[in-house]
This record gives sequence, structure tokens and C-alpha cells, in this order.
Amino acid sequence: MILVTFEGIDGSGKSTQARRLVARLRERGRAVDHFREPGGSELSERIRSLLLDPDLTIHAMSELLLFAAARAQLVEERIRPALAEGKIVVCDRFYDSTTAYQGGGRQIVEWDWVRSFHARVTGGLQPDRTYLIRLDPEEALRRRAGGADADRMERSDSGFYRRVVRAYDRLAEEEPERILCLDGRRGIDDLAGVVWEDLRAVLERSQGTAPSG
Amino acid sequence: MILVTFEGIDGSGKSTQARRLVARLRERGRAVDHFREPGGSELSERIRSLLLDPDLTIHAMSELLLFAAARAQLVEERIRPALAEGKIVVCDRFYDSTTAYQGGGRQIVEWDWVRSFHARVTGGLQPDRTYLIRLDPEEALRRRAGGADADRMERSDSGFYRRVVRAYDRLAEEEPERILCLDGRRGIDDLAGVVWEDLRAVLERSQGTAPSG
Repeated sequence: MILVTFEGIDGSGKSTQARRLVARLRERGRAVDHFREPGGSELSERIRSLLLDPDLTIHAMSELLLFAAARAQLVEERIRPALAEGKIVVCDRFYDSTTAYQGGGRQIVEWDWVRSFHARVTGGLQPDRTYLIRLDPEEALRRRAGGADADRMERSDSGFYRRVVRAYDRLAEEEPERILCLDGRRGIDDLAGVVWEDLRAVLERSQGTAPSG
Repeated sequence: MILVTFEGIDGSGKSTQARRLVARLRERGRAVDHFREPGGSELSERIRSLLLDPDLTIHAMSELLLFAAARAQLVEERIRPALAEGKIVVCDRFYDSTTAYQGGGRQIVEWDWVRSFHARVTGGLQPDRTYLIRLDPEEALRRRAGGADADRMERSDSGFYRRVVRAYDRLAEEEPERILCLDGRRGIDDLAGVVWEDLRAVLERSQGTAPSG
């Protein structure tokens, strides 16, 4: 039915919001499939374990291609069939993450190329709605460090995340119809309420079938 | 120093010729690195094991991207350093295989796109010389079946390999300076002699350092 994605840097709260939305939709009796990238299929999980293996050397271009391979499989094996069955699909990260991290953060490919590349990888499938949770890299780092001083993080990391944030902002500027920016400093319940109200409107526009409540 | 690749369908004899060339170069005291795709680095071998796992469902686009990820890693981790050290690098398959199999055989991407994609994946690295061993799909199938009747093979397989062969031929037409076509029906020693003489000329042109013998 519709594909909803959550984006933002690690620590922004996007995974929490994705889970909240999925739970609320299911409470209302909606059929929802929930995936987090990379993963969601046997092959994609195997690729994920490669990407997370600390003993493996992975060149930046290989990394981009592995994320894309995992995504292509997820789309064909799980997302397209779920959408065809009329389900709502919620993804914690999708191709905007690759644009932001490998394109913006690592700067290994040009903007226009990576954006057209996604269309190849997904066979033209685009999210119907994307929630981008914006947060300063320093604040996100503090959250991830459990309140410890973010200054301990390497400066290179900080510069990397700033480029990722800028790339996300650029995406939001280029696709204001698809991407809704949310302030990650707001409370979890507050944000969940904004997402819920927005999604109701998106569902209404798409098929006039907004969930109640 | 230079990158030499061998291409052709399975059963064409390219791996035998690659090994022969590597052995002869080493006999002459040449520093040679020999790789077969996908593989050649820790990550690339791990990707190879995914591609060869019979229990995994792999969508055609994921397959293309996994081959590309393995290649990107091989190029950065092994091939570029070897070339920088003045070595001759011999690869059993390289990006022409992806053009021929995933582009021509599976037809999942357009010709121009997949060709420009390779330049991204390899950071612009191109083979200095490519030996394409041409053989009819039926003859190659007979060889692989150990002399058994190739008619047993499914027609769809046969059609697939014919498209691969056509794609290889098209590549050779588009890049006659790089790709030398060889008749796979010739004997092993005969072919090895042709490759050897040609490579001597390539090396002479590249640096005036042809091996003796």
C-alpha cells in the first residue's frame, strides 16, 4: 500500500519513532511490515553481518554497493510483495541513508549519480513518506555515549556526521513533498504524535483510508 | 604495471589460459599477481561464498551489486597496490563478465548504464589487455558436462548463454584495441602461444620491457 521510511543520524531517535508508529498502526488493526536496513531478508541479513564485522576491511565503494545489494533484495523479496498485499511498510533507513552517509558523509560519489543509482537499485520504488529526524551531531553523539562528553569523539567523526546532516537537509530541500523534517530535540511522545497525525493525512490522501484514533 | 584479464563463458578455457600465462611469466622471473573473480580479498571471498550459496535467494540486481562490491574491494585492496609495485596483474574475469552476464545474459540493466557503472566501481581502472576466448555455448556446455550431450541442458540456459556470448562479441566490437578475440576451439598450447606472443607485444608497447622467450 504505502512505504514509509525513517531517516536521521544514529542517536536521532528514528528507530524509536519507527517502532512507535508500527505499534500504533497494529493496535488499529493495520497490516504492517517493519524492516530495518540493512536486513529484512536472509541475504540482506548476511550482508549486514559482513558490514558489521569488525575484522573485515571494507572499502567505501564496496560498502555502498553492499548496502545497495541488501536493499535491492529487501525490495524485491519483501517490500514489493507486502505493498502488493495492501500492507503498510515501515523502514528504519532506506536509500536516503546511502545518499547521506556514503554520498554526503564519505563523499565517494557525486550527488546526482547516487540519486539516480537508487532508482536502479530499487527498480524505481520510492518512499511515499519519509520522516527525517533532525538532530545536531554533537547531541546525537552525547545520546549514544549515554550522556558522556561528546568531545571524546574524534574530530573526524564529528566532521563526518556534520556532512551527513547537511546531506539529509539537502535531500529535504529537494523533496519537500516526500520528506517531513522533525526536530529531534522534541520529546518522544510529542514526536510520535506529529508522525501519527501526518501519516493519517498521508493515508487519507493515498486512499481515503486513514486509521481512526 | 599492467592489468590483463581473461573473459569468456564457463567452459571456454579462460581459466586454463590465465594459469598458463601466469606460470610462464613467473618462469621468466616476472612479479605476477593472479586473481579470479569474485574473490581475491577477505571481503570478496566472503561475498563469493554468498553468491555460491545454493540456499540463498538472490535477486538479479542484488547479484550484480554483490559482484561489483567484490570487485571494488579487489581493485582497492589488491590490484591497485600490485600495479603500483610494478607487478603484472592477471584476472580470471573482471567487469566485462558483469556486462556480459548481468547486462547481456540477464538483461536487468541497459548496456550504457552498466558500462559507465564499471568505471564508478573500479575508480576508472581499466584492463590494459583482455583476452576473450570465444566458444559456442553448446560446445562449452558439452565440455562442462564432460562430453555428455548438451541437449540435456534447459533451453532457457542455452538462450541465456547465447545472450552472454553476443554481449561479449559486442564488447569486442566496441573496444577492439583492448579486447583480443581468440578461438576457443584451438588447442590449449596453441592458444597459450598466441596469448604469450600478444602479451609480449603489449608489454613492449607499455614500457619496452617484454619478457624473453
